[in-house]
Amino acid sequence: MSQRVKIGYIGGGSQGWAHTLINDLGQCSDLTGEVALYDVNYEAATRNAELGNQVMARDDAVGDWQFEAYHEMAGALEGADFVICSIQDPPEETFVHDIDVPQKYGVYQTVADTVGPGGIMRALRAIPQYREIAATVRDWCPDAWVINYTNPMTVCTRSLYEEYPDINAIGLCHEVHPYQDLFAEIAEAHVDEATNVSRNEIDISVKGINHFTWIDDAYWRDHDLVQYLDAELEKRKPIPGYEPGDMDGESFWINNFQIAFDMYERFGVLGAAGDRHLAEFVPWYLDINDPEEIHRWGIRLTPSSARISDGDAPDKMRQYLTGAEEFEFGESWEEAVEIMRALAGGEPFKTHCNYPNTGQIAGLPKGAVVETNALFTGKGVTPLCAGTLPPQVRSMIERQITNQETLIEAGFDGDLDLAFQAFLNDPLVSIGRNEARDLFAELVEIERSYFEDYDLADATVLRE
Amino acid sequence: MSQRVKIGYIGGGSQGWAHTLINDLGQCSDLTGEVALYDVNYEAATRNAELGNQVMARDDAVGDWQFEAYHEMAGALEGADFVICSIQDPPEETFVHDIDVPQKYGVYQTVADTVGPGGIMRALRAIPQYREIAATVRDWCPDAWVINYTNPMTVCTRSLYEEYPDINAIGLCHEVHPYQDLFAEIAEAHVDEATNVSRNEIDISVKGINHFTWIDDAYWRDHDLVQYLDAELEKRKPIPGYEPGDMDGESFWINNFQIAFDMYERFGVLGAAGDRHLAEFVPWYLDINDPEEIHRWGIRLTPSSARISDGDAPDKMRQYLTGAEEFEFGESWEEAVEIMRALAGGEPFKTHCNYPNTGQIAGLPKGAVVETNALFTGKGVTPLCAGTLPPQVRSMIERQITNQETLIEAGFDGDLDLAFQAFLNDPLVSIGRNEARDLFAELVEIERSYFEDYDLADATVLRE
Amino acid sequence: MSQRVKIGYIGGGSQGWAHTLINDLGQCSDLTGEVALYDVNYEAATRNAELGNQVMARDDAVGDWQFEAYHEMAGALEGADFVICSIQDPPEETFVHDIDVPQKYGVYQTVADTVGPGGIMRALRAIPQYREIAATVRDWCPDAWVINYTNPMTVCTRSLYEEYPDINAIGLCHEVHPYQDLFAEIAEAHVDEATNVSRNEIDISVKGINHFTWIDDAYWRDHDLVQYLDAELEKRKPIPGYEPGDMDGESFWINNFQIAFDMYERFGVLGAAGDRHLAEFVPWYLDINDPEEIHRWGIRLTPSSARISDGDAPDKMRQYLTGAEEFEFGESWEEAVEIMRALAGGEPFKTHCNYPNTGQIAGLPKGAVVETNALFTGKGVTPLCAGTLPPQVRSMIERQITNQETLIEAGFDGDLDLAFQAFLNDPLVSIGRNEARDLFAELVEIERSYFEDYDLADATVLRE
Amino acid sequence: MSQRVKIGYIGGGSQGWAHTLINDLGQCSDLTGEVALYDVNYEAATRNAELGNQVMARDDAVGDWQFEAYHEMAGALEGADFVICSIQDPPEETFVHDIDVPQKYGVYQTVADTVGPGGIMRALRAIPQYREIAATVRDWCPDAWVINYTNPMTVCTRSLYEEYPDINAIGLCHEVHPYQDLFAEIAEAHVDEATNVSRNEIDISVKGINHFTWIDDAYWRDHDLVQYLDAELEKRKPIPGYEPGDMDGESFWINNFQIAFDMYERFGVLGAAGDRHLAEFVPWYLDINDPEEIHRWGIRLTPSSARISDGDAPDKMRQYLTGAEEFEFGESWEEAVEIMRALAGGEPFKTHCNYPNTGQIAGLPKGAVVETNALFTGKGVTPLCAGTLPPQVRSMIERQITNQETLIEAGFDGDLDLAFQAFLNDPLVSIGRNEARDLFAELVEIERSYFEDYDLADATVLRE
Repeated sequence: MSQRVKIGYIGGGSQGWAHTLINDLGQCSDLTGEVALYDVNYEAATRNAELGNQVMARDDAVGDWQFEAYHEMAGALEGADFVICSIQDPPEETFVHDIDVPQKYGVYQTVADTVGPGGIMRALRAIPQYREIAATVRDWCPDAWVINYTNPMTVCTRSLYEEYPDINAIGLCHEVHPYQDLFAEIAEAHVDEATNVSRNEIDISVKGINHFTWIDDAYWRDHDLVQYLDAELEKRKPIPGYEPGDMDGESFWINNFQIAFDMYERFGVLGAAGDRHLAEFVPWYLDINDPEEIHRWGIRLTPSSARISDGDAPDKMRQYLTGAEEFEFGESWEEAVEIMRALAGGEPFKTHCNYPNTGQIAGLPKGAVVETNALFTGKGVTPLCAGTLPPQVRSMIERQITNQETLIEAGFDGDLDLAFQAFLNDPLVSIGRNEARDLFAELVEIERSYFEDYDLADATVLRE
Repeated sequence: MSQRVKIGYIGGGSQGWAHTLINDLGQCSDLTGEVALYDVNYEAATRNAELGNQVMARDDAVGDWQFEAYHEMAGALEGADFVICSIQDPPEETFVHDIDVPQKYGVYQTVADTVGPGGIMRALRAIPQYREIAATVRDWCPDAWVINYTNPMTVCTRSLYEEYPDINAIGLCHEVHPYQDLFAEIAEAHVDEATNVSRNEIDISVKGINHFTWIDDAYWRDHDLVQYLDAELEKRKPIPGYEPGDMDGESFWINNFQIAFDMYERFGVLGAAGDRHLAEFVPWYLDINDPEEIHRWGIRLTPSSARISDGDAPDKMRQYLTGAEEFEFGESWEEAVEIMRALAGGEPFKTHCNYPNTGQIAGLPKGAVVETNALFTGKGVTPLCAGTLPPQVRSMIERQITNQETLIEAGFDGDLDLAFQAFLNDPLVSIGRNEARDLFAELVEIERSYFEDYDLADATVLRE
Repeated sequence: MSQRVKIGYIGGGSQGWAHTLINDLGQCSDLTGEVALYDVNYEAATRNAELGNQVMARDDAVGDWQFEAYHEMAGALEGADFVICSIQDPPEETFVHDIDVPQKYGVYQTVADTVGPGGIMRALRAIPQYREIAATVRDWCPDAWVINYTNPMTVCTRSLYEEYPDINAIGLCHEVHPYQDLFAEIAEAHVDEATNVSRNEIDISVKGINHFTWIDDAYWRDHDLVQYLDAELEKRKPIPGYEPGDMDGESFWINNFQIAFDMYERFGVLGAAGDRHLAEFVPWYLDINDPEEIHRWGIRLTPSSARISDGDAPDKMRQYLTGAEEFEFGESWEEAVEIMRALAGGEPFKTHCNYPNTGQIAGLPKGAVVETNALFTGKGVTPLCAGTLPPQVRSMIERQITNQETLIEAGFDGDLDLAFQAFLNDPLVSIGRNEARDLFAELVEIERSYFEDYDLADATVLRE
Repeated sequence: MSQRVKIGYIGGGSQGWAHTLINDLGQCSDLTGEVALYDVNYEAATRNAELGNQVMARDDAVGDWQFEAYHEMAGALEGADFVICSIQDPPEETFVHDIDVPQKYGVYQTVADTVGPGGIMRALRAIPQYREIAATVRDWCPDAWVINYTNPMTVCTRSLYEEYPDINAIGLCHEVHPYQDLFAEIAEAHVDEATNVSRNEIDISVKGINHFTWIDDAYWRDHDLVQYLDAELEKRKPIPGYEPGDMDGESFWINNFQIAFDMYERFGVLGAAGDRHLAEFVPWYLDINDPEEIHRWGIRLTPSSARISDGDAPDKMRQYLTGAEEFEFGESWEEAVEIMRALAGGEPFKTHCNYPNTGQIAGLPKGAVVETNALFTGKGVTPLCAGTLPPQVRSMIERQITNQETLIEAGFDGDLDLAFQAFLNDPLVSIGRNEARDLFAELVEIERSYFEDYDLADATVLRE
């Protein structure tokens, strides 16, 4: 017996994530229904709808889903059971500046979408957009479950709750998955009976905030795996173990767990996001004078050029739609469908997600959006208690939470002077107060059309 | 593949619970091993061992377990993976007085094993015993999981943690199960597709402290069942709906959910233990002049006479051992074996249990032993966040927690003056200060041999 | 140089407190100005104005004050620097029932104006009145300092803050003063160089809530006086030291510190309000069957008859106004004028008062109105940190704070079902749930005209 | 009538502070007694004793005090009523390196005695010394009041409480006094009747931690002065208002309130320590490449050379002792004598001091040593509630508190790896992780003889 649901998809013109959803729904038989695609680029949403319906019509698709593009967000969300959000401003007008302008001031960022000057700009731009999403959910599908994929994950998810406190919303991110793989390898290496361990068999306790999450607990069955981290650390030494130039030619997304293990050595708990993300939450990895210096830690800066193009996604799309290439079902490792199934009353599902802290992480502020394990059932999301973190790590996280809450307040009030407080307190803004002001003002100026909800006229920080 | 474990059983001479364990282990094939029975009554433990081994030898027993009686607790616990505690002082020397003496002062108790004068006496007697258990665990099986069944549940479990903070211990109690049955009925009555709903399909969020637990959330699949409670309340009205004498001839354990629903009407959340227990946590149900008056609420006082005899258990035992009657396997509804299986790395298991508050119940003190849902896995016990309770309910619970913590401190310090603070603040001690003192002193005097760990000589409260 | 201020006086027709104010202002030369008297009984306010002006005209009056009666509260408060509140509903329509009706149900109260059924009724009546006062302050003198004298002190003061969070308000009460006298005696008895110690030389730290305040710290100069409490306790034993009938013929307000010292013996800190008040905060002193039984503790119940008459105050008034008797200046021991002088920028003044908890009492909820020491200066009120209380005492106080907050919410929402939650949880309501309901409903019914702001139609508790 | 007391003085060989004490005691008649001088440099203590006795013998000295030098700390402290601590390691072996070595790594510090690499080294050296002081107090004068003047103020004072939790200790610092002068000027400029306003008439509420304290409240009588800060800010603009080189030839201690007002503009509350101190608590003022760049903010770096010499103090001492120059009494502005007088039971005294947080600053951790106002009486120190700070400011302070607590734990455990966590999280350590390690290791190496209480052999951070 299958249950019929409606999924509203904001950012439904995207190519990457939409293809994944089509893949997963095509293989899902216990849920059926409508996928309502909304995108500021209606044509793109239309193409995804066309592809979705085409795939579902195939014999090997067990799913029964109708895809449709919508001109208005309200229409896509009306009566929805689930809302998926995955949006992005045109990178060439935003992300590119977020990366390049700070470099002029000596501020280097590996990703620039979560913290640092780039993360802060992105947060300020996203808050009004997420207020609108939350308001639309409140009006058209107040009980729907909203699954957010957009960065900055924490600020976006937190904005939803700030605008509509009764919303049901979580944020999902993939950065922890490689750590499950890592511990699967550790289990195989150290536990006799552990062979062919799958990522899903690893039971880790993650805690922190998105992209600055930590692991202090990992099990395979009843085998404690954290006890082997010291040996893993020694194997990986020296840390840092590379030289400038070593990463030339590597993927911009390469990760060698160097920073994660350096944090483990310093603070006793393992950092649990890609090193490119971890590096941005403290000043001491990105204190560099040249992009190649970060190679020491086995990572690269993602240059702005890599953010403009979608790679070969548009090509692929054309091939699929014309039938030149066949869309092939695969294992996406995405959890959205399993989560929706559980929330619809099916098989309970446990994973980590971003959700307001109701006590699951002791010692972090209540209400802040944190990343922890949770159980998804027909009743909804139940966070699993994760205990606390060492005070030094907690302090680094709290500093970010304060900044995030400051950005939320600044975004809701349109107050750039308040936003600049967060900017000054950002760990990557290790430059003089005057230069920090100039950088902030320059970024706002260059992305001015995205700051219509802000009071630019009265912002002291822009006048200096 | 089955995993071999050792279970130490303190109170292993008991007849009720031991038979249940034999029943459940006889049907459990994925765990195997030794059951080490320790009891102050060695003979009784020997008889249980004999029965256990006899049952396991049967063809229809899939379990592979060896039972053995021990003279010393240390021997039974040495190297144990699990420790089960279910102990009781001779009722005729203790429980009987706990019930009868207060009645002379006008204090009536429905159960007398959790709060009220009886619960306080029982707590004071149990604390030194549980210190000894915790110390033995620390010495002989420091990583074992301890499952406690003894009342007062909260104080006993809390004593284990006070003595040995790194202990792995939970407390289990059956009082919530009838509420799962109740909600299964509600689901069947109100949800179209719900038929033959089993207790296990009901997902409730319990929160509070043992025997004073509350439900504000109940689901069958993704169907919210709490919305039907108002209708259930109306059906049950008038509340109270009985007259003195109405319960004559009924079981002493009868429960009509009258108090649970009265609490729901008053406080907006459903009390979730048997009415006999709920009644003892506030003064307004047991303000009676005669045992029959409590019949109004559909319950009876359990008289001390019912506490002396074990009923027909000894008879049964004899029959089993002589072969006059065959031990029959059945569904025990006990969860201990499922919990042990999960903790040993098997199938994860979710249920409610008594465990220190690490944040699962927001607004209640950290470290207090609370009753909430938890997930059992090879990693251990992970409490599930349950949110908070209305401030008025929280206040009633906090009062009890303060009393429990006071008793712990009094028990560990041997300080009866401190214990008397808890006594005065107990909700059932609604008598004059002088009378309260007399009652307390009389109970201590009559059970004097159980107060060897207390400083009777310096207790002001005994001297007045 | 004297500073000109305006004092608005709500309840300005009262005879007791108005005479005190006339006395104190007549002797105050550094503040001058207007006293604007408002009272629902305009005639009474007029008489007080007449007396005030008459007294100020005398040669021996150093004060320069003009008294005037107002028909409207707004007029009296317009532009006021200080607002004094001391109001009371007609006792024969309210207070009398608050005392007498509960006695029919076996609930005896010594005062009945703070907690217990009487205190709860009084709170429910006062909340709408105090909302109006706060709203008038907000509109007509938003920066004024409001000094409240009305009971229930905590709920009245708390209502002001709930309605107008930016209000400057404190509550003053005299119940602690006898404890300063007590410690002055203790100093004289135990410290060699201490002779003729005045109440003002005693430095005590009070903490708790009004009428349920505690002392754990008392000094004369640098001499710790708390160390002598044990000796004082022994001197006063046996406690209780009286028999029923012993207080016949004594003042209804007699106090023998029996309960204060009994609390000291039980809990290690000294209760610090009159025994008549302390007795009402726990169930174990007023568990009596006859008013005379409370004599054991050296106090009496104040009968309702003593609440109807103003004693000889009206007579005195006539004498003063006709000149038959001369108004004589004396030492009032009231602190309002000293406080106003300090707040106006004069000499700093330290005393205890009722004020929201901003952290001065660790472990009690923030925002609750607590009684602690504070420093009054031109800057305003600065609470002095008082540390915390033993957990058992804190628990008893928290229970009351929860009840007070519940009453505030009930009063602001007009919700009698919520108010009944506080009623059931009141320590003096040690009666059956049915009887408690009947008592509550009877009190509301008999005082119905004072419950116009409540939703009587939808109150479940009235319908049963 | 005068009261006889004993003052133990640790660091009693110092010339600056000892002269001040001699000056103040020479003018104090209500306290008399002994001053016991202890110093690792016994000769220096002897000279101070000689000078003290010589001054007291003069006719114009109203004080009656005997000075004596001691070889052992225990002797100086035995039976003391007050203990004054003002100690310093030989600057040429410590302070000089604390300043100079970090500059090699590009880390500039204006003071280097509170935070930054220098502050952290100083803290690590001081902790074992302060443990010894606390232990000596516990043994020889457990009830004495300890007044600390040594930096890092917070860590030193906190160490006393960590070693001996029942100690009576405060820390005193002068950095706030110029702000009282500043507000006195503001009062004179803006309030008509304010003329010749003295520092003592200004009632400010300071809150924060030593050298990173904030003002959000300032009154002269009942006149709010904070309302004039915006005008003061405008007057001072542009901020920063100087150029590199502008401070050449100025005192190293020059302060122009530039950073204080910049913080006011950014965060809405006024920084309230000298700009040289404030600059070190955030990364954005000292992000410079050359010492002169800090001139922009109207301050200078204090070079290490200025730390070696005592200036003309030794000369002065010689002149005094030989009679070549007469010691002249003056106004020292030191508050230690007024505080001791108040604590001895004399006139109450209100000022700000460093003391554990018992709730006086809401939102900062309990137990951390904070700087707030307090009332000194015969009863002891009573902190005055100061409310809270904006979350962004609180976050910057909390980060420091975490670092201070980390240093305490590291110092008590001798754990340099833990200390390095604080080092990495210090706001001035805006350098790469490798460089930070090298700097830390170099500093420990060069000051090795001061790290005898640390486990150097097992410190990972030293081995890399």
